[in-house]
Amino acid sequence: MTDFNFDTAEYHTRIARVRATMVQRGLDVMIVTDPSNMAWLTGYDGWSFYVHQAVILPLEGEPIWWGRGMDAAGAERTVFMESADSIRSYADIYVQNPNQHPMEDLADHVLSLQPQRIGVEMDNYYYSAKAHDVLAERFDGLEDATGLVNWCRIVKSTQEITYIRRAALIVERMHEALIDHAEPGLPKHHLIAELYRVGIRGEGSAWGDYPAIVPMAPSGMDATAPHLTWNDKPLCADEGTFFELAGVHRRYHAPQSRTLFFGEPPAKYRRAEDAVLDATEAAFAVLQPGALAQDVAAAFNGTLAKHGFTKDSRCGYPIGMSYPPDWGERTASFRAGDMTVLQAGMVFHFMPALWLDDGGIEITEPILLTETGVEYLTQTPRTLFVKD
Amino acid sequence: MTDFNFDTAEYHTRIARVRATMVQRGLDVMIVTDPSNMAWLTGYDGWSFYVHQAVILPLEGEPIWWGRGMDAAGAERTVFMESADSIRSYADIYVQNPNQHPMEDLADHVLSLQPQRIGVEMDNYYYSAKAHDVLAERFDGLEDATGLVNWCRIVKSTQEITYIRRAALIVERMHEALIDHAEPGLPKHHLIAELYRVGIRGEGSAWGDYPAIVPMAPSGMDATAPHLTWNDKPLCADEGTFFELAGVHRRYHAPQSRTLFFGEPPAKYRRAEDAVLDATEAAFAVLQPGALAQDVAAAFNGTLAKHGFTKDSRCGYPIGMSYPPDWGERTASFRAGDMTVLQAGMVFHFMPALWLDDGGIEITEPILLTETGVEYLTQTPRTLFVKD
Repeated sequence: MTDFNFDTAEYHTRIARVRATMVQRGLDVMIVTDPSNMAWLTGYDGWSFYVHQAVILPLEGEPIWWGRGMDAAGAERTVFMESADSIRSYADIYVQNPNQHPMEDLADHVLSLQPQRIGVEMDNYYYSAKAHDVLAERFDGLEDATGLVNWCRIVKSTQEITYIRRAALIVERMHEALIDHAEPGLPKHHLIAELYRVGIRGEGSAWGDYPAIVPMAPSGMDATAPHLTWNDKPLCADEGTFFELAGVHRRYHAPQSRTLFFGEPPAKYRRAEDAVLDATEAAFAVLQPGALAQDVAAAFNGTLAKHGFTKDSRCGYPIGMSYPPDWGERTASFRAGDMTVLQAGMVFHFMPALWLDDGGIEITEPILLTETGVEYLTQTPRTLFVKD
Repeated sequence: MTDFNFDTAEYHTRIARVRATMVQRGLDVMIVTDPSNMAWLTGYDGWSFYVHQAVILPLEGEPIWWGRGMDAAGAERTVFMESADSIRSYADIYVQNPNQHPMEDLADHVLSLQPQRIGVEMDNYYYSAKAHDVLAERFDGLEDATGLVNWCRIVKSTQEITYIRRAALIVERMHEALIDHAEPGLPKHHLIAELYRVGIRGEGSAWGDYPAIVPMAPSGMDATAPHLTWNDKPLCADEGTFFELAGVHRRYHAPQSRTLFFGEPPAKYRRAEDAVLDATEAAFAVLQPGALAQDVAAAFNGTLAKHGFTKDSRCGYPIGMSYPPDWGERTASFRAGDMTVLQAGMVFHFMPALWLDDGGIEITEPILLTETGVEYLTQTPRTLFVKD
């Protein structure tokens, strides 16, 4: 949109990193269908991932954006590539038509590259079973390269960190607005409307983009479940609600959760708060360059256990550029068995949520790993939110 | 969320409709992975579709919700099924783990039903190539049943139409807010923040849910592309912007677009407006129960051609309940060759957008087909929006 997020040199650096991995894996072409990976490699930005589209990346030359005819105009407005031949499109008759699949058209473009071994993202959204079947009829050498590009994204550039810091500023403002506006009797959708307003307006250069996951805000027993959204029921006195929100700037995310109680939280929730904060501190003590992802989980879970709580899900994952339905990068996880070596420049959503039998507690942090350890990206108070 | 959107009888009616189609197709089990289809069949509502989940529908007994362990609590809060055995879940170690795929767990649950021919949604989001490969290793009889459930959703119930009417009220209010707030110099994200606020607050019982597609709002040359979103650039005098927005209530959508000019639009846009409105009128004259979807496209395109314009994409599609990334139901399309017989109770987004070489024009309508023809669902003025 005549307002590029990165200079061309940064795209070349990224592409070189992906190609090095392709060579290691013996691949000469990648078909990239994850919208976040497509954007990271080319700059392409548009809500067009509900139809089939891809970036074709050979080992040499410009990447090729491929998608629906009407979306080629969006590619022209957003990608870094200069050659007209680097944007290819298919006719509208292929759209959601059981008799003509867009991948038939993609296959022709890939064939002209005379590929030997083609990498495809087998377990990504937007690469459907049918899409794969159509390609597999045309090519023998399809290899599962799920996550290949995602792993290249895990250490962030200076410009990416700038954008994530802006996203973090936005989510900090959203939590301030939450504290300011929430009160017993307020219909929940009124509060969510205000959080959206604050999140999209942002502040200064930190203008708000749309989140890859919408606000989650369940109250009371609904908060035993992590992924319920909102309705029109009023907030209630003596009830807890957790808010999992993200600030977003130029598709870069800073998710953060807080839990709000009206009135003094039950003693169990105060104990859970102590446990989570103590276990987070223990995790952050080992969250250093050179440590393994599983070390972080071990420190967290060990301390949590001393407090009498357990968590059977991972306690964090990398974040960055994202499109719906997930703001996570789907690479490392803080959990047993994950041997990822941590490096400075990685950014995580540290996610020590506990879902109990009568509610939930989430006090989560977007963090940057520096040479010296964890840097908090927000100043949001790291406690339960309590309001009378 | 202790606030069910439909009574149990409606779910039984829906399930019976799907089972009748399964029998016709010789299927004895459906594995339903489209979140909209899952919700329509069971009531399940949560932003958890970024991990693998499904509804297993045999020919008899309750459907089975299957998903991630932590999301089983969300299923308990939202689905109509009563048996504890109708909610099954998998351990967190399967989540985004290249070595253990959730479909291995699903296969065990399906196997216990002793299936003969299993329908899967080959070309739906969230049924990845990898998911299919894992199932295909366990079962011979996987059949492509893409769209089977979607087609059962195309004629809406009374309660569904009530929800869509509420969504339409919301989008009407959003367009009023657009006219009220837009002015040259206003940063676009400030306007979008206000539209979100109005859309989520809604009005009275019509509270706003999140849209399956976020607002699209490109200006000037960016409006040559249909799917760009927003940034922080100010709205400009003597420039056009189209706004494709949706009102949403309980996951039911009413999308609608309008195009705003500051100052008198160029003569070409006035001609395009005349062409679109005239062609829409021609299309609505034939949009009657018993007509075919392609008849509507023929009437539209024929009239458009008389005005000297052409549109190479479909001019409408069914809408209803939806989750990201698409508010369309992915069944019929108003285009040549679509032989769908139109029936009262169908709801469409009529989408006569033109993307020209220097901008775009969208004047689109959510409509209900009744026994007597087209009913407009909003009172939004059906013209270009012009502001000085």
